[in-house]
Amino acid sequence: MTMYNPPRRHLLSQLAHVELLTPCVDKSAEYFHDLLGMEISATEGDSVYLRGWGEYFHHSLKLTQSPLPGMGHFSYRTTGPEALETLAAEIEASGRGEGWIDGDLGHGKAYRFTTPEGHVGELFWDVERIEVPPEEQSIIKSRAQRYIIRGVPVRRLHHVTLFASHVKSTREFLQDTVSLISNELVRFDGTDHELLAMMTANVQDHDMGVTWDPFGATAPGRFNHIAFWYDTREEIMRVADLCFDHHHPLEFGPTRHGGTELFFSYVTEPGGNRVELCTGGYVQYEPDRPIFEHLASSGGATMWGEEFPHEMHGQGTPAVDPQTGLVIEPPAVTA
Amino acid sequence: MTMYNPPRRHLLSQLAHVELLTPCVDKSAEYFHDLLGMEISATEGDSVYLRGWGEYFHHSLKLTQSPLPGMGHFSYRTTGPEALETLAAEIEASGRGEGWIDGDLGHGKAYRFTTPEGHVGELFWDVERIEVPPEEQSIIKSRAQRYIIRGVPVRRLHHVTLFASHVKSTREFLQDTVSLISNELVRFDGTDHELLAMMTANVQDHDMGVTWDPFGATAPGRFNHIAFWYDTREEIMRVADLCFDHHHPLEFGPTRHGGTELFFSYVTEPGGNRVELCTGGYVQYEPDRPIFEHLASSGGATMWGEEFPHEMHGQGTPAVDPQTGLVIEPPAVTA
Amino acid sequence: MTMYNPPRRHLLSQLAHVELLTPCVDKSAEYFHDLLGMEISATEGDSVYLRGWGEYFHHSLKLTQSPLPGMGHFSYRTTGPEALETLAAEIEASGRGEGWIDGDLGHGKAYRFTTPEGHVGELFWDVERIEVPPEEQSIIKSRAQRYIIRGVPVRRLHHVTLFASHVKSTREFLQDTVSLISNELVRFDGTDHELLAMMTANVQDHDMGVTWDPFGATAPGRFNHIAFWYDTREEIMRVADLCFDHHHPLEFGPTRHGGTELFFSYVTEPGGNRVELCTGGYVQYEPDRPIFEHLASSGGATMWGEEFPHEMHGQGTPAVDPQTGLVIEPPAVTA
Amino acid sequence: MTMYNPPRRHLLSQLAHVELLTPCVDKSAEYFHDLLGMEISATEGDSVYLRGWGEYFHHSLKLTQSPLPGMGHFSYRTTGPEALETLAAEIEASGRGEGWIDGDLGHGKAYRFTTPEGHVGELFWDVERIEVPPEEQSIIKSRAQRYIIRGVPVRRLHHVTLFASHVKSTREFLQDTVSLISNELVRFDGTDHELLAMMTANVQDHDMGVTWDPFGATAPGRFNHIAFWYDTREEIMRVADLCFDHHHPLEFGPTRHGGTELFFSYVTEPGGNRVELCTGGYVQYEPDRPIFEHLASSGGATMWGEEFPHEMHGQGTPAVDPQTGLVIEPPAVTA
Repeated sequence: MTMYNPPRRHLLSQLAHVELLTPCVDKSAEYFHDLLGMEISATEGDSVYLRGWGEYFHHSLKLTQSPLPGMGHFSYRTTGPEALETLAAEIEASGRGEGWIDGDLGHGKAYRFTTPEGHVGELFWDVERIEVPPEEQSIIKSRAQRYIIRGVPVRRLHHVTLFASHVKSTREFLQDTVSLISNELVRFDGTDHELLAMMTANVQDHDMGVTWDPFGATAPGRFNHIAFWYDTREEIMRVADLCFDHHHPLEFGPTRHGGTELFFSYVTEPGGNRVELCTGGYVQYEPDRPIFEHLASSGGATMWGEEFPHEMHGQGTPAVDPQTGLVIEPPAVTA
Repeated sequence: MTMYNPPRRHLLSQLAHVELLTPCVDKSAEYFHDLLGMEISATEGDSVYLRGWGEYFHHSLKLTQSPLPGMGHFSYRTTGPEALETLAAEIEASGRGEGWIDGDLGHGKAYRFTTPEGHVGELFWDVERIEVPPEEQSIIKSRAQRYIIRGVPVRRLHHVTLFASHVKSTREFLQDTVSLISNELVRFDGTDHELLAMMTANVQDHDMGVTWDPFGATAPGRFNHIAFWYDTREEIMRVADLCFDHHHPLEFGPTRHGGTELFFSYVTEPGGNRVELCTGGYVQYEPDRPIFEHLASSGGATMWGEEFPHEMHGQGTPAVDPQTGLVIEPPAVTA
Repeated sequence: MTMYNPPRRHLLSQLAHVELLTPCVDKSAEYFHDLLGMEISATEGDSVYLRGWGEYFHHSLKLTQSPLPGMGHFSYRTTGPEALETLAAEIEASGRGEGWIDGDLGHGKAYRFTTPEGHVGELFWDVERIEVPPEEQSIIKSRAQRYIIRGVPVRRLHHVTLFASHVKSTREFLQDTVSLISNELVRFDGTDHELLAMMTANVQDHDMGVTWDPFGATAPGRFNHIAFWYDTREEIMRVADLCFDHHHPLEFGPTRHGGTELFFSYVTEPGGNRVELCTGGYVQYEPDRPIFEHLASSGGATMWGEEFPHEMHGQGTPAVDPQTGLVIEPPAVTA
Repeated sequence: MTMYNPPRRHLLSQLAHVELLTPCVDKSAEYFHDLLGMEISATEGDSVYLRGWGEYFHHSLKLTQSPLPGMGHFSYRTTGPEALETLAAEIEASGRGEGWIDGDLGHGKAYRFTTPEGHVGELFWDVERIEVPPEEQSIIKSRAQRYIIRGVPVRRLHHVTLFASHVKSTREFLQDTVSLISNELVRFDGTDHELLAMMTANVQDHDMGVTWDPFGATAPGRFNHIAFWYDTREEIMRVADLCFDHHHPLEFGPTRHGGTELFFSYVTEPGGNRVELCTGGYVQYEPDRPIFEHLASSGGATMWGEEFPHEMHGQGTPAVDPQTGLVIEPPAVTA
């Protein structure tokens, strides 16, 4: 039966930033700065704030020192101050609200909530835009800063993907309460359980993914990956070439997703979090188009027929012990 | 002084199709079908309806036999049936309305209007989606049909660019009455005359361009170009390679625009209309971002420094006699 | 211990063509013509002769109807008529000569020989160059014909790879008697058995490959693949995209070889023969450089870490029954 | 009348290195190291020696501090020690020999000569290969070092192009005495004067160019450009993107040459010397193929129709005063 989204409300404008937790914030920052060519906008306390050369906001990535890797929070910008109040009130009413925070470097007050599995989300409106010194400005007016020589510089944040024991509940919360649009679903045959959901605030193939975590019952709220955008496939292949000889883990690809059509590869940052590098995909302009649905049994995980490696099954951050299904805690540090 | 758009109203969802007039509809259709790999959705009367492999609607290009080349009309889809009524009423009130038509192949009733310089625009909601026989379906669920072997197939319609004697008036009508968003402007120094405007219904760098026509006073309402999207720069270079040895005019490029950052080239279809092939560009998600403004004197028409050929100055369809500034009429045909 | 080639003798100039056997010559020819954009130079008897758009000789591929797929012969051009006589005499003396043939469409008299495992090789000097009618000529003087609109046109023949039960014997025959240069070797650990050898007549990474056939003892002289060259990776990805939705088998890739560095994918033509599509690689100009040696245990079969699919083990043409190791014969046809 | 090369003698194996003179060796070295990703093999006296990541010899570029920019010398490696002696003796006999030098960093004794217009050439055999510490080695056996993260790293030296008042004399000397092969010629209509010659030691489209210098009579022996190779067009476009915003001059392109088919752009290093970045082109394996000849009047300088900028006419290093045709000397430095 064909599924549709509820009417569009235009309350969210874009995925704005993601906070990653890492047990080695300096090494993680070095990876995003040196290899992926991101700019450091600020360093404060245990956190480093970074942006891609093609972005407009203060940061799209916040790295925070933490005993275990994983996601700190994801953050959407609303389409205006009223939209922020509207959504905050509705989330509050849903029981999933966590209340307001004063803001952070780069943005003003924000409303926090949790997904049914405990991932922390955030909404805000007031934002600080990138201001670079004159010598770092671009002569291209549509760019907030000039293009970067260093590494293989990502252009911008593209999406974040959460791990969930019950994809459908998380998706329905994000769709019905947070007002994201469901673009594509993969369902397990003969049930309404979902393996994977692609959602967006706007017209992009997806800026939010939710995927099934086989260890989600015992280790809820884990993180699957963050994805950055390149304009060309060649940049993704250059990162892959570099990984090979520079001892940077390349987990999968470059190849093409079957869903979303994105050309991509998965790499791993020093803190252990998966990072996707992607380009391509599609735009979805139609408010009334059915949700694209796949069956898990019908294959097509990649467009060119490659299988995802068996090792990736259930792999996310923080890591779990596959025997117990529990998060692997770091050894206690004694003074 | 920084310029801003009015608050977003979310009434338009996408540029849906463009009608080109051509004195040789068969040759034009052959060009789009054979070289640019478009599919023919229908042929009716003097018109041929085509679509790209990555599109969802019945057609994005309508070719119509006509004594002179140029644009028949451009057409936006609204975000819903109410949005269509709202916009129709407002355009009617502005005095630029032309009234309702019953529709056309591929879409339902539509409201027509003219820009201040006489270009015909159209808005509609009800649309016919592509339905292909099973053997032409893709196993990719997000695709309405499979990928194409023929020629160098364009993925989808990207934008249309109008010629105008007074860019600002046309832009303000499209912005204030039709509800398009102004993304980038090039202004002549020391005046508020505009050389070029990039506008969009959504988040794309632009789906509507308006550019200054030096012959606009004597030959109003001319057409500059239609643009189709490819996923990669290599496809645009392959078309260029083919043009070279297959006697297809290649007017300019491949190179990169300074405004919009699009990698592109301009080719000419047999009817004489300019066609742009493009990829890259940017997405503009922010409802409150200032309009990017350039001065005409500051250069940067292309990113890599190439100058537009002098011959392109004032070149559009229908063609004008540069001495008189009048449209060149075809010779009378005698029986 | 570092290995070197014998002094270079400059007797061979290039791999000129390969003859493939196919049980369905019409479908095979259609595949190479329609999808891989090759031109048909001639059809004679049970054979079709094809060339890539960037080639200079009459054909680089001969397809011949046969009960079983596989390779008919491979053919090198010598550097002159004396070089041909010299090599013919030396091969004759080695006992592997098969004698002279009068020639074929596109070339003059040729000397035939067999490798130690029975593959048929051929050497010739007199050659017929491509002559196209004026309307198919390129305005690029270095091209024998213009570029091709059809399919994803291969530029030229790149290499051929033989299956052998004992790679080293075949390689030493090709190196010491036929005068090919050994560029890279993969050896099994702790033995002098070779898994793979890359050889060339000239400076290319390889134009001849020899790889270990686990069924070589019971099914000698089998064929692994023929490879064609593209100028860009994007063309190889376009073929992959087409395979997906047009029911053309895509066996592996696109990805990058660890040896030779070639970006490639393996497809299968309708007759069952493996076809490699490749670009990149390197040039080897040094007459005194050691042979690059890898150990089979050291991995690196692909540059980005992907494993060759298990199903490819021992897969070549004609096919063998993995239980008996014998070639699978086609069913007898009764009138 | 079709022109042919003399029989091939296989005395030269490759263009090995080029010495550029620069008035600011530190800035020039920084440009090649930081932007073009070359490695510094050594610094000695007034010279810096660099190599690309895909090369095998100690250096392919020597930069030497000098009052004026231009070329110090170009250097070919022979196919062996006897080939070196043979060529030295023949050049000596031609009257263009300059005698032996002891060698330089990275290679052994070398024989020097001058072209008819005074460019210094060099031949050698003994060479020092790249040896990098273990942590900089590649796990790809065919690479002398690992791939580079820094800048947009060129793979290898591709060709050098000389300026000459009389192209034909220089070409005939290089062909008949130095044993280079003539691949392509552009001749002025109705004369045997040549505008451009493409030559090679081997099978590459060209590793040596000679092009007409309108100031060659008064400023003989000038330098046109050095060219480095990338594997992909995208890398050349990335350099162009960087030039735009990092104040590095981009003189022309990216676009495609009509002769040789190379995709390329011309940039200028801080010392003032033109540097070409290129990929594509063709291989020429046939010992008996006619020289490809173009007429200067027939156009086709670029494949896509772009004209070379008028400012490039006669532009090389050292620079000349177009009024006097004399080299512009630097101001005297007083203590």
